[in-house]
Amino acid sequence: MTGSLINAMAVDRALRDRADHVIPGGMYGHQTTALLPSELPQFLARGDGARVWDVDGHEYLDLMCSYGPIVLGHQHPAVEAAVDAQRRLGDCLNTPTPRIVELAEVFVDRIPHADWALFSKNGTDATTLCLTIARNATGRRKILVAERAYHGAAPWCSPDTSGVLDSDRAHLLRYRFNEIESVEAAVAGANGDLAGILVSAFRHDISEDQEMPEPAFARRLREICDAQGAALILDDVRGGMRLHPGGSWEPLGVRPDLSAWSKAIANGYALAAVLGVESLREAAAGAFNTGSFWFAGVSMAASLATIETLRTEDGFETMRRVGQALREGLAEQATSHELEILQTGPVQMPWLRFADDADFSKAVRWTGTAAREGVYLHPRHNWFMSAALTDADISQALEATDRAFAVVRAEFGPS
Amino acid sequence: MTGSLINAMAVDRALRDRADHVIPGGMYGHQTTALLPSELPQFLARGDGARVWDVDGHEYLDLMCSYGPIVLGHQHPAVEAAVDAQRRLGDCLNTPTPRIVELAEVFVDRIPHADWALFSKNGTDATTLCLTIARNATGRRKILVAERAYHGAAPWCSPDTSGVLDSDRAHLLRYRFNEIESVEAAVAGANGDLAGILVSAFRHDISEDQEMPEPAFARRLREICDAQGAALILDDVRGGMRLHPGGSWEPLGVRPDLSAWSKAIANGYALAAVLGVESLREAAAGAFNTGSFWFAGVSMAASLATIETLRTEDGFETMRRVGQALREGLAEQATSHELEILQTGPVQMPWLRFADDADFSKAVRWTGTAAREGVYLHPRHNWFMSAALTDADISQALEATDRAFAVVRAEFGPS
Repeated sequence: MTGSLINAMAVDRALRDRADHVIPGGMYGHQTTALLPSELPQFLARGDGARVWDVDGHEYLDLMCSYGPIVLGHQHPAVEAAVDAQRRLGDCLNTPTPRIVELAEVFVDRIPHADWALFSKNGTDATTLCLTIARNATGRRKILVAERAYHGAAPWCSPDTSGVLDSDRAHLLRYRFNEIESVEAAVAGANGDLAGILVSAFRHDISEDQEMPEPAFARRLREICDAQGAALILDDVRGGMRLHPGGSWEPLGVRPDLSAWSKAIANGYALAAVLGVESLREAAAGAFNTGSFWFAGVSMAASLATIETLRTEDGFETMRRVGQALREGLAEQATSHELEILQTGPVQMPWLRFADDADFSKAVRWTGTAAREGVYLHPRHNWFMSAALTDADISQALEATDRAFAVVRAEFGPS
Repeated sequence: MTGSLINAMAVDRALRDRADHVIPGGMYGHQTTALLPSELPQFLARGDGARVWDVDGHEYLDLMCSYGPIVLGHQHPAVEAAVDAQRRLGDCLNTPTPRIVELAEVFVDRIPHADWALFSKNGTDATTLCLTIARNATGRRKILVAERAYHGAAPWCSPDTSGVLDSDRAHLLRYRFNEIESVEAAVAGANGDLAGILVSAFRHDISEDQEMPEPAFARRLREICDAQGAALILDDVRGGMRLHPGGSWEPLGVRPDLSAWSKAIANGYALAAVLGVESLREAAAGAFNTGSFWFAGVSMAASLATIETLRTEDGFETMRRVGQALREGLAEQATSHELEILQTGPVQMPWLRFADDADFSKAVRWTGTAAREGVYLHPRHNWFMSAALTDADISQALEATDRAFAVVRAEFGPS
């Protein structure tokens, strides 16, 4: 990015001014620039492969992947071809298309814990439906939820409680991720009324170090649910189809009773899924769940192509490899700049924070500098690798981050 | 439809058998065949204009329009061209595209009560968000909701309470549509804790006669909300962009504070909107609302094209005209067959039921016969006109319904 930043962002600025009039707060949700460095735009014009372009024509190497949905890269030819083919037939009809059967079969075939599938549009649809199914199956009310965990934007789970009632969360009990004693205490508090335990595939709370699940913790959740006759509900909305082809807890050998999926499963097309075990099939059939666009064929065709392409192009391994290279490169750079950083989470969904950076001023400076250098990172939210990234892309990213570390070191000193 | 129905539905039957294994109950939501005559398929293959085709190749004149989303006809060229153009740029990115600003401006320009807009994916997202905004604005809890009204598929509003808790609906108070005394009683019951009154654009409860709002009822709701400092929330998910270009209550001269939109606004592409008045802008900005796909550009491009095309092609008038012709034709046919029917609701979203048909056996026989004759109608749910329908299509529909009335008359006798 060269020249005056203000002039260079003229189109973006004009759009922000217009948005201020017709959109409350100028923009909303996770796609406001509220948490971002000022160098990043409010509006992007296009995406292709591992790159996105803002409305003023600046190119960025995309390490956010639309906060998860883009897993094969923007406009992946195999996905777009499947979409083209389905669009020529139809999308939103009076009934589902055959794609819903094919996609449910793919999930049941490839996800070991899945005996059936239901589809919707939002990750929140899927997590909400998991709670309803668990309650319908058990006739009980209490759901255990980890403190600060993000499970969506409905009143029962949104991270901000403005306009939300206590009654919306009346039967949630809190535990701490990876702390089994807190789970056991919450189970005791449920007093025989436990419908399920909801757990994220890993801890990815915003602005906090990420945390992988300890195998013993995961196994103990499974044991507790079995002992209590409660449902183990895995929220794999963020990790699903990015960490492991069989579901994010498959490497742990712990299988949930219900799992919620969205984001990456259709490479950016709006789709979510609930998968479940045989014993919950009847409870799932008996829960009311529908939406005007839930049966539409195009996003399901996109999902079929996405899942198949991840397999044939070894996408999971690509994301692991480039994520590992990025993590190693960042660690070396930080050391060489005498900056202390903490890198957490799976390498496919990495994040770093600086030590002694409670207000994220170093992180904002660092990601802002990276943005000027053409690399799109987030100071507070985990990043996402895509299978479109190449080793050369990671080298480019590391050139930008090296300059960004130098700026942080120059302005803030060593840590 | 000729030949053996069973053989003629062989592909559909095979897909149902496969679905039985991988989808709870074989299918779910409003797109199961549970309420439909056996002559209608579970799976459609494609749609074009005013017609859809099932997986066995049968063609149907489409009078359901995907339960509302299709308003210009399937694959409308102007919408598909806008989608093509946006797809070449990008859909789901790290930020919104300029389309979100353009679309918010269009809604604010054309919908008199709208000073701002927010977008999401499901109608349920929009109705839920309206409640949150009203509660955030007022600091109060109670929402008035009409008995049996459909406002979506979240625990607070789904028509079936399996797996739903009493606490999910703790602060809803019920009234009866068009019965202002019941509203006043509910307001009194709110005891100063009234956040808003939620009302459907017209009464369209499944399996019941539809009912237009009485102007005095609508005006009194407005007065009560003003007097109480509560939000009047119009659920225009089903009627929006089908009944009136300014919103379904614009002809009544009653403007809501918040309105929820979805279905027809993007001609089948997944999109929903909340529109609101200036005084609720801050409360809307302060409510947490987001989703992985809520900012995606393609459905917004589709909505821009849909709204513009409805205007330039006089789509609202087309739907009124063909709906009126259908209603008049059906009335004449019923009289000539000595069958008593009740036609209710706006002609653009018509429905009929037979007198003395509590179990809907006449309606199932009638719509089943129409299906065999190539016309897609629903025995229990309102139908939807589209702007793709021509006078010749209505003539075709009436030829089919005439034969269907004859079958009902022959089997059930006169009513």
